[in-house]
Amino acid sequence: MEKTANIDKGLENVNIKWTKLTYIDGNNGILKYGGYNVNDLIENGAKEDEIQYLFLYGELPNRLDLELFQSKVQKGYELPDFVKDIIFELPRESDAVAMQMAAFSALATSTYNFKWNADLDRDQAAKAIGLMSAVTANVYRHIMGKGPVDLEPSDSFAESFLRSTLDRTPSEDEIDAMNAALILYTDHEVPASTTAGLVAVSTLSDMYSGIAAALAALKGPLHGGAAEASIMQFQEIGDPDNVDAWFRDNIVNGNKRLMGFGHRVYKTYDPRARIFRRYAEKLSANDPEAKKMFDIATRLEKIGIDTFGSKKIYPNTDYFSGIVYLALGYPLRNNIYTSFFALSRVTGWISHFMEYVENQHRLIRPRAVYVGPEDLQFVKIDERRGPIITS
Amino acid sequence: MEKTANIDKGLENVNIKWTKLTYIDGNNGILKYGGYNVNDLIENGAKEDEIQYLFLYGELPNRLDLELFQSKVQKGYELPDFVKDIIFELPRESDAVAMQMAAFSALATSTYNFKWNADLDRDQAAKAIGLMSAVTANVYRHIMGKGPVDLEPSDSFAESFLRSTLDRTPSEDEIDAMNAALILYTDHEVPASTTAGLVAVSTLSDMYSGIAAALAALKGPLHGGAAEASIMQFQEIGDPDNVDAWFRDNIVNGNKRLMGFGHRVYKTYDPRARIFRRYAEKLSANDPEAKKMFDIATRLEKIGIDTFGSKKIYPNTDYFSGIVYLALGYPLRNNIYTSFFALSRVTGWISHFMEYVENQHRLIRPRAVYVGPEDLQFVKIDERRGPIITS
Repeated sequence: MEKTANIDKGLENVNIKWTKLTYIDGNNGILKYGGYNVNDLIENGAKEDEIQYLFLYGELPNRLDLELFQSKVQKGYELPDFVKDIIFELPRESDAVAMQMAAFSALATSTYNFKWNADLDRDQAAKAIGLMSAVTANVYRHIMGKGPVDLEPSDSFAESFLRSTLDRTPSEDEIDAMNAALILYTDHEVPASTTAGLVAVSTLSDMYSGIAAALAALKGPLHGGAAEASIMQFQEIGDPDNVDAWFRDNIVNGNKRLMGFGHRVYKTYDPRARIFRRYAEKLSANDPEAKKMFDIATRLEKIGIDTFGSKKIYPNTDYFSGIVYLALGYPLRNNIYTSFFALSRVTGWISHFMEYVENQHRLIRPRAVYVGPEDLQFVKIDERRGPIITS
Repeated sequence: MEKTANIDKGLENVNIKWTKLTYIDGNNGILKYGGYNVNDLIENGAKEDEIQYLFLYGELPNRLDLELFQSKVQKGYELPDFVKDIIFELPRESDAVAMQMAAFSALATSTYNFKWNADLDRDQAAKAIGLMSAVTANVYRHIMGKGPVDLEPSDSFAESFLRSTLDRTPSEDEIDAMNAALILYTDHEVPASTTAGLVAVSTLSDMYSGIAAALAALKGPLHGGAAEASIMQFQEIGDPDNVDAWFRDNIVNGNKRLMGFGHRVYKTYDPRARIFRRYAEKLSANDPEAKKMFDIATRLEKIGIDTFGSKKIYPNTDYFSGIVYLALGYPLRNNIYTSFFALSRVTGWISHFMEYVENQHRLIRPRAVYVGPEDLQFVKIDERRGPIITS
């Protein structure tokens, strides 16, 4: 079709906004948050709490700034009763991300007169981050058949979440791994989830509705679902010794896509994957099931890079992350791992929303190119031809 | 900032997809659905049910096609119990659109393994249209303090909805007006709501999640909220004799925006506004409150066009629609009128989703232009400078 020539398919070369939040160098595999290389942040022991502050305020906090900020996040640790009731009303076999979406939609019901306001947005955003942690913990507990919980404040966002879901005291290594996972998923510029949320808030819809729209996009298998898809692939392979035959029978002959490989922006090894790989190796050392997954993953990784590296297809952030969650004790089901993606990414979402609405707002309204029939004449229903369906 | 020069702000000149659904000629005020002029459809007595079929199947149905289709829509008229429970669990003073969003998020929880499939999508879409009617009716009833309801099938989508919400037999004129309102809001190409949903389903997220994302965008005052904003403005004016002074004191001096005027695409009188005007006039003849609103609206319309017409700013579809809803007996509160927008627009949303995923699918992933600081060195928290906040 002629007329479709000028369609910006997938918005691939379209710049929807400017940002001071995240910089990606896809050719060299570099990711920076607010000017800081993500590798450096993790190697220097940065906490997700500090990164949240960096996204909301544009600089790293000193200790008192951080404590004040954490107290604002913790205002979201206790959910309103009706939101807890709604989560526990949903069928237990539900998709965890859809449950998060239902909870944030419920939170959005009270936003009838919501106004974006640069003086208040950051307090609301801090609370939204806390609410996401409480929502995710309660969604997880409902899926696992446990009762509702209010999160206990601590000096670590990662630790409060681990305690509320695992019902035990996590080790320092576990807190460290969860903290790294949270940092690595905090933001990635404007993928589909962030874009869906941006479109929603461009109508001056409220912050929670923007989060719900982002969750709707994150839920899809081409976005947040990839972490589960990767580890399901490792489970299907079942044993490191099966990798070569599985790869030959499924990937080489084109029956399946290699999950956890390839990215629209990265044309080399995803820097996040390198860090997740390290944590997956460390944590899985004490967990035979996770260790088996890790051994399968590394063997498959090698064959994958040998085969696809020349096409610039490499492991992405979701390739190893599921092994970290598995080693932490979280089961692979109900899209739980994708809900952990949202637990962290909510910070990126709302930071992009604020950046857009406060500083560069314009209603997002693209166009479509019409290629259908022209000028048809209406005919009354009983005079219409066409096959009679009589099923 | 230099680097921001190439941002496609608001995606204003970006074509996100092709479509056979809706054609808008913004300069001449023409709107067509699948090749049929919307004026002709309404003047010839088309029913919303036929228009829904036109959107899903690309042609108008004969009578048997239509009956089969209606039975598929009516499969959605009875909501699952947990969805009804969730609606009635929400605070009664809630925003109606957020309540619709919570209901569709709840419906999305069962879509863990949802696959788009051209052979099944239309049945699912027909059911989604019925679900939207049942969701909207129950949301309305909850706000009004009435109990839950299952919708009764009839040979008119408009009539089933009116019966379930008004708890009385609607007149032919009322059914006719509601039917016209439904037709007029069925689709409008790719506004923010449709775009948010498209971004969500481009990740192969499910149809209900796409609807939830669209609702998140529709909720905003720059989109679906305009119908309520228009009639609130008429209420604020209070009497036809106040129009001139109100206009001078609020619009001429720039204190307020004239609500219900202006549109990103239409540069002349919105063809839908012309039809809504006719129905508003007819229905309000028997309702003193609505009649007063109509008299205010027409007087304000004249001054508005005299003032802004030369700038190509004219009444849009939301200018008169609220008067129709008011005359039908629906109160102006809780964003109810915007939820009626969604009641109809769901058909356009899912038709665009199917057209995109089935025929032109690509993950939607734009870019952002980074303009923040470069290469900062991480400093440990206790060595950071910056103001100490001690509140």
